[in-house]
Amino acid sequence: MNKIDVVELLATSPTGQTVTVQGWVRSRRDSKAGLSFIALYDGTCFDTLQVIAGKTLDNYQSDVQRLSSGFAVQITGTLVASEGQGQSVEVQATQVTIVGEVDDPEQYPIAKKRHTFEYLRQVAHLRPRTNAFGAISRVRSTLASSIHRYFSERRFQWVNTPLITTSDCEGAGELFRVSTLDALNPPKNDAGKVDFDKDFFAREAYLTVSGQLNAESYALALSKVYTFGPTFRAENSNTSRHLAEFWMVEPEMAFADLDDNAALAEDFLTYLFKAVLEEREDDMAFFAQRIDKDALTRLQHVAESSFERMDYSEAIVLLEKSGKSFEYPVSWGLDLQSEHERWLAEEHVGRPIILQNYPKEIKAFYMRENDDGKTVAAMDVLAPGIGEIIGGSQREERLSVLDAKLAARGLTEELDWYRDLRRYGSAPHSGFGMGFERVLNYITGMENIRDAIPFPRVPRSAPF
Amino acid sequence: MNKIDVVELLATSPTGQTVTVQGWVRSRRDSKAGLSFIALYDGTCFDTLQVIAGKTLDNYQSDVQRLSSGFAVQITGTLVASEGQGQSVEVQATQVTIVGEVDDPEQYPIAKKRHTFEYLRQVAHLRPRTNAFGAISRVRSTLASSIHRYFSERRFQWVNTPLITTSDCEGAGELFRVSTLDALNPPKNDAGKVDFDKDFFAREAYLTVSGQLNAESYALALSKVYTFGPTFRAENSNTSRHLAEFWMVEPEMAFADLDDNAALAEDFLTYLFKAVLEEREDDMAFFAQRIDKDALTRLQHVAESSFERMDYSEAIVLLEKSGKSFEYPVSWGLDLQSEHERWLAEEHVGRPIILQNYPKEIKAFYMRENDDGKTVAAMDVLAPGIGEIIGGSQREERLSVLDAKLAARGLTEELDWYRDLRRYGSAPHSGFGMGFERVLNYITGMENIRDAIPFPRVPRSAPF
Repeated sequence: MNKIDVVELLATSPTGQTVTVQGWVRSRRDSKAGLSFIALYDGTCFDTLQVIAGKTLDNYQSDVQRLSSGFAVQITGTLVASEGQGQSVEVQATQVTIVGEVDDPEQYPIAKKRHTFEYLRQVAHLRPRTNAFGAISRVRSTLASSIHRYFSERRFQWVNTPLITTSDCEGAGELFRVSTLDALNPPKNDAGKVDFDKDFFAREAYLTVSGQLNAESYALALSKVYTFGPTFRAENSNTSRHLAEFWMVEPEMAFADLDDNAALAEDFLTYLFKAVLEEREDDMAFFAQRIDKDALTRLQHVAESSFERMDYSEAIVLLEKSGKSFEYPVSWGLDLQSEHERWLAEEHVGRPIILQNYPKEIKAFYMRENDDGKTVAAMDVLAPGIGEIIGGSQREERLSVLDAKLAARGLTEELDWYRDLRRYGSAPHSGFGMGFERVLNYITGMENIRDAIPFPRVPRSAPF
Repeated sequence: MNKIDVVELLATSPTGQTVTVQGWVRSRRDSKAGLSFIALYDGTCFDTLQVIAGKTLDNYQSDVQRLSSGFAVQITGTLVASEGQGQSVEVQATQVTIVGEVDDPEQYPIAKKRHTFEYLRQVAHLRPRTNAFGAISRVRSTLASSIHRYFSERRFQWVNTPLITTSDCEGAGELFRVSTLDALNPPKNDAGKVDFDKDFFAREAYLTVSGQLNAESYALALSKVYTFGPTFRAENSNTSRHLAEFWMVEPEMAFADLDDNAALAEDFLTYLFKAVLEEREDDMAFFAQRIDKDALTRLQHVAESSFERMDYSEAIVLLEKSGKSFEYPVSWGLDLQSEHERWLAEEHVGRPIILQNYPKEIKAFYMRENDDGKTVAAMDVLAPGIGEIIGGSQREERLSVLDAKLAARGLTEELDWYRDLRRYGSAPHSGFGMGFERVLNYITGMENIRDAIPFPRVPRSAPF
């Protein structure tokens, strides 16, 4: 049995041979001449394979005529050049076998017709069978492969930083607790507090909000590393931009300053976008046609642009002079809002822009303080159509400067291990974080981040 | 500045050129002739680069003579053929710059000498700087890359199944709860129970023990998928084989039976082992020399062997006839212990063996029932020197058979979405799970699984 993936069959197979394909029926239409045209989908590419089944088949009436969207079938036949529109080859079936039926096709939750994305989230276990979510799934997988390939080719080691942590130094107030204590009657200590010494890890434990600090310890041993894994925020935000569980990519390089960091971010994004354009042409055509007409051109534009570099301070001046009336105020010392970021990238420079050297008050404690005493070596990559897509910094490698910041935050003891990295063979090092689903939405033009991950976890909802 | 990775420099660089390298000092020894030999390590490969710094350097006394293990340095010099043993090239330094010092080298936690692995776990943030953990980190990253590459080349889509789940159907009693409720005074409902409706997900939520059921829903849409992500067990086992947080690989294929599954497992393992042998020759030589003398030969043997197939029932007969006195009893219907698995693989067939068709009572509800009514289409891959290394099955695709099992376990309502996969276009499908750290230990010969993951999480311990 010459069993073959639909993608391979459509792309490279010579006609005339006998092939066997397995997949699911997308649709069936019958001609008056007693032929059925079956669109067969197996998920390996966007396109379906056209199968022609005639009434000469023994089970034409009993089986073929019952086929509707969702039936699992195995089909054997001859691959021939197609005379119809929309495909170059088709299969003339000599055998059609029903593998799995759809009971009561009228009730099939994703029976062939348009569904809202909101509805499809309620059937997240079936939605990858639809055109849109098949395409998203393949683009997601291709994007992930490209990320690993990019780093692997450049000798970055993939480091799996821990998901469970007893450190709460980064995400105060937005952490999920991880516990095996009795939820109703937790053990208590003499002070009447929960006795976390009796918990699984003998301390209060949480789900991580970032692998960066751990990744730093590996960068200062292996030179170039990256993380790519799940990250968590217990933020009670029911918006189209927030997930409680999402995936993040965080490269970290030793002996690298902010310029090296910005160069990596530009090269990385360009590589990823080119890879998706090349490898998922079929799915991207769908997004441009049905989801967002700019999906392809936006991606091509970014992939071909050089990224502008600009200081935060210069951006503030430009925004103040822009004559635009923004919703949020613009002033040195305030963080930029999406409207400001998009004006800079879209209207001012018309391509991605890497904004650097932000006021230290609005950035994290681990970012390297600049000589001006006012700014830190932070950077955000702003892309047209979305705003911030990557955020990173050079890390503070000087123990005395770091110590002052840790002391001010009461983190000195908690992060003593992190101080060791500056105590023993410290080196300039830099890295950034990229939200995987956010980039996937940017690529596909999908609007809600819940549609960029297979099973979204959001406030009051974690089904399946 | 021609900045270059040590691995590239050692492998391919022509001598005579001026190079700049950055990394950390492993050791320094001085000759009587006023030369210092510095072993420089940058983590890109096992080997260090030999740097020769002479007293003609301006800072020879002030800097070079102070160098000890752990100093971060930048060195520029000429690459020349080495006349010494152990390296083909070396660098004659024209400039040595200290980037980061080691304060009080006597107190450096991993100062050059042998440390026990147990001690190194206490300095998990520094241990990747050692020979052993540098090697483990690189093998881990190479193994992970190989996994992604294997599946990508065969058109398996990487699916990120959720970590947080509200389903407790697989790991009763060994689950971590995920919550944002007040731990001390959780809200209570009228019945006096914890009111999980007020929790973040409006239900009691846990960390997943497997992505399989979710992966099945994607396999029945995209044909071939795999997961590769963190998995959790709240098992209070303080052993060298248990982690509370570990990584697992789970491929899942539609239109695939147990034979296809076994073929995939064999092909997959063989591919991975060959990739590690080819790509990490330097690190594997270290493991064979210092950790486990059989590390290389074991891996080569498995990579070159065809895997035996055998039914569980036949294995029981063989074990009963073996004449060996096992610690645990052997009898049809009992699960096999490690001693039994290892006898089969090591002594009986002398190569990996795939054991199939286990008694249904000792296997999971989702495994496909065989026609004999007594066994299920389960398989375990047993490897010499470790026992089970992969476990998988053909899944029950028949709704009526699955329903009986779900009903007996009270899971019908909870897994109604999973039943949908059998209701709509069901197809035979199969998959398996492979514990990533377990395989890494098998490859490297490391004995404790806490040394196979960067920051191990175990009972009463989740530091860093």
